[in-house]
Amino acid sequence: MQNFVFENPTKIIFGQGSIAKIGSEVKRFGNRVLMVYGMGSVRTSGVYEQVLNSLKEAGVDVVELPGVKSNPMLSKAKEGIALARAKQVDAVLAVGGGSVIDTAKTIAAGAKADHDPWEFFVYSKTVKSALPVLVVLTLSASASEMNPAAVITRDETCQKFSVRSPLIQPKTSILDPEALYTLTPSYTAYSAVDIVTHMLEGYFTNTEPGESPLQDRMVYAFMRTLMEATEKSLADPRDYDARANFMWSGTLAFNGLPVAGMGVVGFPVHMIEHSLSALYDIAHGAGLSIVLPGWMTWSATKNPARFARLAREFFGVAEADDAKAAAAGIAQFKAWFSAIGSPVSLKEGGIPEGDIGKIADNAVELARTWRLKDYTKEVIVEVLQHCR
Amino acid sequence: MQNFVFENPTKIIFGQGSIAKIGSEVKRFGNRVLMVYGMGSVRTSGVYEQVLNSLKEAGVDVVELPGVKSNPMLSKAKEGIALARAKQVDAVLAVGGGSVIDTAKTIAAGAKADHDPWEFFVYSKTVKSALPVLVVLTLSASASEMNPAAVITRDETCQKFSVRSPLIQPKTSILDPEALYTLTPSYTAYSAVDIVTHMLEGYFTNTEPGESPLQDRMVYAFMRTLMEATEKSLADPRDYDARANFMWSGTLAFNGLPVAGMGVVGFPVHMIEHSLSALYDIAHGAGLSIVLPGWMTWSATKNPARFARLAREFFGVAEADDAKAAAAGIAQFKAWFSAIGSPVSLKEGGIPEGDIGKIADNAVELARTWRLKDYTKEVIVEVLQHCR
Repeated sequence: MQNFVFENPTKIIFGQGSIAKIGSEVKRFGNRVLMVYGMGSVRTSGVYEQVLNSLKEAGVDVVELPGVKSNPMLSKAKEGIALARAKQVDAVLAVGGGSVIDTAKTIAAGAKADHDPWEFFVYSKTVKSALPVLVVLTLSASASEMNPAAVITRDETCQKFSVRSPLIQPKTSILDPEALYTLTPSYTAYSAVDIVTHMLEGYFTNTEPGESPLQDRMVYAFMRTLMEATEKSLADPRDYDARANFMWSGTLAFNGLPVAGMGVVGFPVHMIEHSLSALYDIAHGAGLSIVLPGWMTWSATKNPARFARLAREFFGVAEADDAKAAAAGIAQFKAWFSAIGSPVSLKEGGIPEGDIGKIADNAVELARTWRLKDYTKEVIVEVLQHCR
Repeated sequence: MQNFVFENPTKIIFGQGSIAKIGSEVKRFGNRVLMVYGMGSVRTSGVYEQVLNSLKEAGVDVVELPGVKSNPMLSKAKEGIALARAKQVDAVLAVGGGSVIDTAKTIAAGAKADHDPWEFFVYSKTVKSALPVLVVLTLSASASEMNPAAVITRDETCQKFSVRSPLIQPKTSILDPEALYTLTPSYTAYSAVDIVTHMLEGYFTNTEPGESPLQDRMVYAFMRTLMEATEKSLADPRDYDARANFMWSGTLAFNGLPVAGMGVVGFPVHMIEHSLSALYDIAHGAGLSIVLPGWMTWSATKNPARFARLAREFFGVAEADDAKAAAAGIAQFKAWFSAIGSPVSLKEGGIPEGDIGKIADNAVELARTWRLKDYTKEVIVEVLQHCR
């Protein structure tokens, strides 16, 4: 086990009816809040009204910033920063999923900075201060509700970059599984792919040279539960326990716990996918299910033992040869992504094969920023060729 | 899944060499610390010197309170409270295991209170303020390093009671697996029993009426890792990875995570054991391995399905009949406790069978305080008869 620091102070309020508690949570930080949300699904689901009622009851003034799109844009965050300053809000409340939360985090840090917030994302400035961020979660995938990361796309350059700071980690996140009832089958599937990818990237890219029984078993525990809960949620969107297990395993999958002690982990699949969604505005989860099986196939040629371990321990593959066992495990994931309705090739995602060079050009810049040195343009092209 | 609030802000600094960081961690809270420790094992292990060096380097004044025994006494905590006040310390640093940490927590709360600290333990007063608590862990078992609980025995009445408050939860805990190298085989085994018991009591006593796949799998993940790591640590006390897996799974086992969503859990085995160690000064873990198998046998007659589930999912017991499967699972635990060298009966613990009534008299009072209503004297006697 590698040395690590684990600190995750987010207060999670979990369960049906818990949205009613957001007013008193916000009130701990002040009397005026910037409420950030998306394209209107929070209105149709009823969450919007529940949040406003609770804030009103607690005597909190609300400034609204609607209209955050998935693959959120820096321009939207800048709009929020201007609003947060003009209205002198005390906190930022995200009502939504990862895109909304990451926009709220960027606003929270940007409102306290005297420079372009993009500087946080290219690591030329660090976050020194931020407004408190709170969350009412309506889509489980990013785990941004319980981690210090935010991902934003810069409009002019189509760069999808990320920042990490404990100062933008949510103080409180409210997780009501009923908020997922209105999630479409597609977005339920895409979210599941995102969560699985978070775990598998940690599992495969870490720098632990030895065994990692504790972390591996956590990954198996969260991933098995998530996959079962996905199938049950698709069969019955209002299955409370399925949505609850989906929601909580999604958060635990990427809150730092399964990778604590694993050394450094990288996110090459997310990196390549960021280029897909930046260039084609494809759903993040759909992009991941295209890239992940191809990346695993490419990566298993370099480290078949680790892929074989997953296949044996998680899927019960009995094959003795590592390369064959690895391939069998990858095939299982690919089949499962297909079964839940997520695309598993560039072709299925409607992305022209001829664009591989262009995608690699976009991705290689992020590879530099994320310090994924091995991912040259040639390597990325090679990975993408496994995704056709 | 039941509604829950999960909030665990303790900063964990994990790994070899990490004790050197305690000075700068304490310094965040002030310049003078009360350092609480036990009967001298920290001196022979070298941890004492590492801690003092780090504190000195950070410019922290140290006031020492040595001599905390296992099954720590309120009188010792009161000595610490007087010292903390007289020397006006800014923080309390526990260098030890659960007994030392719980004494430090009691001092931290007591130093800020204007009444007898025992009132916290009989729930007649709540903790309203406390000095910051920090930990350098030298014995993994209680998980007190990452939770808000403390257990203390009141000298005059031999009552071993507990208190919970977020205010006494450690701010920072340093977990260096090398600190466990000098742990004797007996204490390695007793610690393992304590950790297993924390998980099994949560697993069996919760009020979740349905399935709990996520929490169950976490228990299996932590317990399997802990059991493997115990065997490896007994075979080679200086096996770093074994000690590391032991230490981190021990903390995760009882930091609130595996029981989040499980409703209310009770600790009847700990309750009955507290009477054993209060009356006979037996090691806590040794007492637990005496009580746990008997309690499981007694409890399985009431809820065989849950015990059968554990036997099947954790030990792979193939038996179709619930009662028989349950018995097989319990037998596996009992055999494992024996194999690692912990007593599994009152007789093996040197406790006279004729004392069962007396033990039950002591335990029933704690049952009232812990609101374990079903545990009348008669019930406790019945459980203890399964422990002969």
